[in-house]
Amino acid sequence: MSQLSNFTFEEMHIGQTARYSKTVEEADVRMFAAVSGDVNPVHLDAEFAAGTRFGERIAHGMLTGAYISAAIAIELPGPGTIYLGQSLKFRLPVTLGDTVTVNLEITELDERKKFVTIECTVINQEEKVVATGTAQVMAPTEKLVIERPATPEVSVN
Amino acid sequence: MSQLSNFTFEEMHIGQTARYSKTVEEADVRMFAAVSGDVNPVHLDAEFAAGTRFGERIAHGMLTGAYISAAIAIELPGPGTIYLGQSLKFRLPVTLGDTVTVNLEITELDERKKFVTIECTVINQEEKVVATGTAQVMAPTEKLVIERPATPEVSVN
Repeated sequence: MSQLSNFTFEEMHIGQTARYSKTVEEADVRMFAAVSGDVNPVHLDAEFAAGTRFGERIAHGMLTGAYISAAIAIELPGPGTIYLGQSLKFRLPVTLGDTVTVNLEITELDERKKFVTIECTVINQEEKVVATGTAQVMAPTEKLVIERPATPEVSVN
Repeated sequence: MSQLSNFTFEEMHIGQTARYSKTVEEADVRMFAAVSGDVNPVHLDAEFAAGTRFGERIAHGMLTGAYISAAIAIELPGPGTIYLGQSLKFRLPVTLGDTVTVNLEITELDERKKFVTIECTVINQEEKVVATGTAQVMAPTEKLVIERPATPEVSVN
């Protein structure tokens, strides 16, 4: 059984990094459409998407936001983090089959408030930047090493 | 069959509003965990969550971000919108069973670039603000009135 662990404020330093990768599959786009309610045809309808500036179906921009939030919750700082805010700039579309990698880097540590600022850069498999942003979080107050909950089983029809 | 329509730049005005509501169910939190990969136990494990500052399971903050993105994609400006950026501040936790309403209001229209700035305020069923943010989008270039794609069927085990 794999584990999740976190970094407390004292365990973090400026320049600390973490990465998180996901390949965007058909099922992911359909699942994100279902959970968000965003059934925009540029995500779901190949024929419609072919007539747009993108020329093909693209993933929801906020799916990349979801990956950033997962990277923060799972990797750095990890469980116990309080998510305060996030900025996002969507720079290039993510298309089905792309593998995106979220790169996190700690750029500020506020000792008094225990706030952590994290620069987020998301690249695709061609190392092109698809999204950037800045996260603000409150560091976990206690060290945690916990069993990793199973990923919920979801089937997409 | 219901339809989706959009607002082109010329059809929008400062102060224009739209709303989008969702009730956060158990299945939504599990689906968001699956699609993002964020299996943090504060979202999935009631016993673990009881020992946190929240006292109970909470929805992923970025699920609220997903609702904002859906409101923009579906309601205002709607299909054909290019999502450029989003800021988010997470102000209060969203718990299972909460009904959240995204309120959008157009606050700036950049005639030259066709950029639209939208203030986003998300409230719960007690009218408490759970998240705020600002979206920047490029307006749809053509008027669309299209068939609303079916929401993908997803089953959560």
